[in-house]
Amino acid sequence: MDYQLVTPHFLKRAAKLYRDKVGFVNEDKEYTYGELYERINRLSHGYARLGVKPGDRVAYLATNMLEMYEGFFGVGQVGAIHQPLNTRLSMEDLTFILSHSGASVIYVDKQFLDTILEIRERLPELRTIITNAEGVNESDIINYEELLATSSSEPYDYSHVKENDIASLLYTSGTTGNPKGVMLTHRNNYLQAMQAMHHLQVTDQDVLLHTLPMFHVNGWGSPFYYTANGAKQVSLDKVRPNIIFDKIEKHGVTIMHFAPTVLNMLLEYASQHDIPKPEHHIRIVVAGAAPPLAFIRRAEKELGWEFIQVYGMTELSPLVTISKPRAQHLDQAEDKIFELKARTGYDMIGGEIKVVNDKGEEVAKNGKEIGEIIYRGNNMMKGYWNNPEATAETIKDGWLHTGDLAVVFPDESVLIVDRKKDIIISGGENISSLEVEDALYEHEGIKEVAVIAAPHEKWGETPMAIVVKREGYEYLTAEDIIEFSRSRLAHFKAPTKVQFVDELPKNANGKILKHELRRQFVENRIKNGEKLFQ
Amino acid sequence: MDYQLVTPHFLKRAAKLYRDKVGFVNEDKEYTYGELYERINRLSHGYARLGVKPGDRVAYLATNMLEMYEGFFGVGQVGAIHQPLNTRLSMEDLTFILSHSGASVIYVDKQFLDTILEIRERLPELRTIITNAEGVNESDIINYEELLATSSSEPYDYSHVKENDIASLLYTSGTTGNPKGVMLTHRNNYLQAMQAMHHLQVTDQDVLLHTLPMFHVNGWGSPFYYTANGAKQVSLDKVRPNIIFDKIEKHGVTIMHFAPTVLNMLLEYASQHDIPKPEHHIRIVVAGAAPPLAFIRRAEKELGWEFIQVYGMTELSPLVTISKPRAQHLDQAEDKIFELKARTGYDMIGGEIKVVNDKGEEVAKNGKEIGEIIYRGNNMMKGYWNNPEATAETIKDGWLHTGDLAVVFPDESVLIVDRKKDIIISGGENISSLEVEDALYEHEGIKEVAVIAAPHEKWGETPMAIVVKREGYEYLTAEDIIEFSRSRLAHFKAPTKVQFVDELPKNANGKILKHELRRQFVENRIKNGEKLFQ
Repeated sequence: MDYQLVTPHFLKRAAKLYRDKVGFVNEDKEYTYGELYERINRLSHGYARLGVKPGDRVAYLATNMLEMYEGFFGVGQVGAIHQPLNTRLSMEDLTFILSHSGASVIYVDKQFLDTILEIRERLPELRTIITNAEGVNESDIINYEELLATSSSEPYDYSHVKENDIASLLYTSGTTGNPKGVMLTHRNNYLQAMQAMHHLQVTDQDVLLHTLPMFHVNGWGSPFYYTANGAKQVSLDKVRPNIIFDKIEKHGVTIMHFAPTVLNMLLEYASQHDIPKPEHHIRIVVAGAAPPLAFIRRAEKELGWEFIQVYGMTELSPLVTISKPRAQHLDQAEDKIFELKARTGYDMIGGEIKVVNDKGEEVAKNGKEIGEIIYRGNNMMKGYWNNPEATAETIKDGWLHTGDLAVVFPDESVLIVDRKKDIIISGGENISSLEVEDALYEHEGIKEVAVIAAPHEKWGETPMAIVVKREGYEYLTAEDIIEFSRSRLAHFKAPTKVQFVDELPKNANGKILKHELRRQFVENRIKNGEKLFQ
Repeated sequence: MDYQLVTPHFLKRAAKLYRDKVGFVNEDKEYTYGELYERINRLSHGYARLGVKPGDRVAYLATNMLEMYEGFFGVGQVGAIHQPLNTRLSMEDLTFILSHSGASVIYVDKQFLDTILEIRERLPELRTIITNAEGVNESDIINYEELLATSSSEPYDYSHVKENDIASLLYTSGTTGNPKGVMLTHRNNYLQAMQAMHHLQVTDQDVLLHTLPMFHVNGWGSPFYYTANGAKQVSLDKVRPNIIFDKIEKHGVTIMHFAPTVLNMLLEYASQHDIPKPEHHIRIVVAGAAPPLAFIRRAEKELGWEFIQVYGMTELSPLVTISKPRAQHLDQAEDKIFELKARTGYDMIGGEIKVVNDKGEEVAKNGKEIGEIIYRGNNMMKGYWNNPEATAETIKDGWLHTGDLAVVFPDESVLIVDRKKDIIISGGENISSLEVEDALYEHEGIKEVAVIAAPHEKWGETPMAIVVKREGYEYLTAEDIIEFSRSRLAHFKAPTKVQFVDELPKNANGKILKHELRRQFVENRIKNGEKLFQ
């Protein structure tokens, strides 16, 4: 029997080698890895006492605070399945997801307790609620600290946990249908940790600010690899720029992971406040679609942060590419370097990506031909929970189909140009809405923008820009925006319609919800009696 | 089926992402990763054509040149077992090892061809010899470049290779008995690569000089992880200081792995020559027993190299600890930092070490109590080839017993004090011969020293120092050495006998062969009619 690739090893190492070093800062209270290990062992023993068995689902509904972090290892040591929940889900979604997974236990932060109490009667399999709320006196609602206080702090024997056991169950919403539960094994999480810690060069000198929700693909697995390396981790309850900048200074933060929108928010804030450049090196890891070059330039030049683009998805544990310029590109001009940094990137060690057309053939590596990114490697999920059809649709011949559309450059790096359904087809030409957004972000009066397809009599579809103006640029008109975009883009790619809004809809991770914009757009057209399709 | 942890993935990635970047410099000829991939695919196809099947043993007898490197992946892609041989073995040892493994093919560098031709008739299973020698015209002796030229350069399909297949067969000599063949699987090598690249922070900007013989535990696995990262690798035929310093400057070497003795040799050379401090950061990775502090200080101060101590053994793929000072120790005084750097170190991510007494209990973590290092983790060998007894003696209850004796400090780092049979027991007190050596190396007139146990009428054993004097210190006497050591050590630890020699016996990796010294010592005593034991 091989030594198993299971994530509790990471905590065990930290407890051994970083026993007296601060592992987690929860608001202002510091916990050493020795203390965390003791608390987490108490938690595992507590779960066992409550009857949690290997394979049971233990849900978490909480922000990025101590208890949330402890759940990763506390549940993992038992061999139960950790099921973090998006805190912004509706009651209906929560009910569906908890019913579908059949979770028997849930940890709920006090701010969400009422929600769970309201839906619990629709969740017959949910036996036990654990919470940090005080003074709740029901036999099946247990106070977290009491559970810990009454449980053993002895190391929890996790030798029964095997690498192909499911460790994480993470529900994702597609554009259609019910949420699907992504099953990640211990091996997935372990190997993702090994590759991410290497490519991000995580060390025990790092201080991670948990800006990314841990419910979002395990915070990209960050609790695993920062723990393995004995780094300091800092809690974050609410993603607010002033709090983030305060914590960076107070705790000497060296690294943060977040979505491009959070970067945008921080840049906005920094432009209005006097933020001193950090004395130590700070790197920011940004995932998702390519951010505007302007973001990267400002992050590096104005804030002095090293920008690192990565890419992944829940089904991939999640990170599979990185865009750090490679050795052979380092002598390029600065602008070219920024462009390389903005790309989706190239394969991390641990898996392979390919970009293929509808026939499954690799697209030409010319930066133009668009295909779908497919992946195989150590990070690929085991499948969707109780959903073999969706699994079979997504994993074909050993390759996972991401639904992300990308071009490949001659240097083998890829650039996502859109989600599979987010391409605008105008006069038979494919237009990447991201490319149009990128150009528009160069306008200093545009704070946020999303480009979607609007119907067009002549061309079928035309790009439409939905714009949030920056303060002080209230005077901007649709004509201004169109004229600007024509100066930057091929005319057929320039938006012909512009709509101004106060804010854009976003998901919990700060990602702009294009499908929501499209839905609103279609609904408005229906309301106004317009034709839906040309 | 999980995506398999097999090492050909590493080459495939390099060929994709570093196609036009130099991957290997063979003397003065450079090969890009694209060229290497093509050559290695030719090699794999060539092997297949010669009838090499998965599981067959393919031996290599060569120095650190291109063909040696190519064998790692060329054999691996076929799924055959790669068996690099120590180039300094006697014909008897080679015959034993090749018979024992039943190798059917061998690659032989021209300088060793005569040796193999001489023993081939005693190796009935050896069907084919491949060599870089020119003009050898026998049907079963094949020229390497001809084999490549006549084979396909298409990517070799290695999808049949599984992670638990044996990848490497590495014979090690113990102090007694015949050499044993350590079986490392692809999974061992792959996971060793992941952890080593992380802890050594290998990047595509690295330039590795292959100072460590690749036949020695796969050069500590270095061909795997420098390839995975697209680093440049530089050949080295002979370990000579002038050549090494030349190559450092010529190729911009950033990292080297070697034994302490090589470091000693380089320091000696540097003290006699004008070596400019490098303009770029150079790190040296040194394994084995703790080097004298003086070595570390000189390497860092005089040469400007970052010193990194690691520890491992063939049975462990090989590296399992590292001694980089951890974050919590960085504010210590310089001397303390050097002391930490000299330690054997603490667990890398990927496995666990423990130091246990004869009852299997962990020793007190006080830096004094001595026990044996045992290990379990991703790196542990599959076992010894055709030797289940030796395997069972070495791996007990899932832990591999290293035979290395160490103390554990309160900070959980360990320090090897001796091989299990290399402790001097004097008056009932254990004396670490390494500690005595360490003290003696502080004497500027001592170039090399080994301390072994000599019988002593009163104390049972006494430390005896075997010394190589530095040039200019010919006047040193045994009394000088003893007096000096008494000023540095507890008296019972100070040598009472000193022998001067011109050189010390070493293995191919430059490690001083204490057992050889002990053997010579015993033989001389027998010759002189002395009592062997008190």
